[in-house]
Amino acid sequence: MKILGRHLLAELVDCDSVLLIDSEKLEKAMKDAARLAGATVVDSVFHRYNPQGLSGIVVIAESHISIHTWPEYKYAAVDCFTCGSNVDPERALSSLKQALGCRDMQVREFNRGMPSPTDEIIAHKNIISAAAAAVSK
Amino acid sequence: MKILGRHLLAELVDCDSVLLIDSEKLEKAMKDAARLAGATVVDSVFHRYNPQGLSGIVVIAESHISIHTWPEYKYAAVDCFTCGSNVDPERALSSLKQALGCRDMQVREFNRGMPSPTDEIIAHKNIISAAAAAVSK
Repeated sequence: MKILGRHLLAELVDCDSVLLIDSEKLEKAMKDAARLAGATVVDSVFHRYNPQGLSGIVVIAESHISIHTWPEYKYAAVDCFTCGSNVDPERALSSLKQALGCRDMQVREFNRGMPSPTDEIIAHKNIISAAAAAVSK
Repeated sequence: MKILGRHLLAELVDCDSVLLIDSEKLEKAMKDAARLAGATVVDSVFHRYNPQGLSGIVVIAESHISIHTWPEYKYAAVDCFTCGSNVDPERALSSLKQALGCRDMQVREFNRGMPSPTDEIIAHKNIISAAAAAVSK
């Protein structure tokens, strides 16, 4: 694969169910997690459902972090998609785990990018151009 | 796993690069895809980056659909997370593939939910309660 990003799918089990319906606290926890990971927060959207559960997404300049909660099961599904090497998605997940009082988190990681016979990390073309310009000076 | 949802990661290759920077058309295509799949659109957020690329997320009552585009590579990364059995995520992806003039789409699918030794599809507890109430009438 010509790799442009990393996508982590995290199952957060045995969380504090009260926090899983608190839109305000959850949005702060998500934004804090993004910033701790080194990401730039661009926008966010959070919705609480009736009678329970919440969906929240933080758009970051490096892609997104999303959360969907099932307070009745003390469970949250989080996904963290980051591109570039300046963001540490594990740090975002670790921060969220702590913020949600989560006792068990299981994470699967996948590369994102263009299918190719071999793996190779590539960058935005403008980043490549900037690097090439710097080298040519 | 106690399965609460399906998460599809799709790599859309060889897309129409002009469409990949058209925030308005892309937002419409994403919302159309969600509705065609049987999902209920709750909210959306789209951002175009300088000098290129775009991030968009459509929050649906059944979770979310996101897109991140790299027009310089004619590539888009889409993820479609749906819960419940009333939404057809493959239909959403198929609609998006067509809308973006994409010639090749590769999809990986993962279950989302609470880790467990065996696989079992479960529902929101309120849905279970409603079903139980209907049975008891």
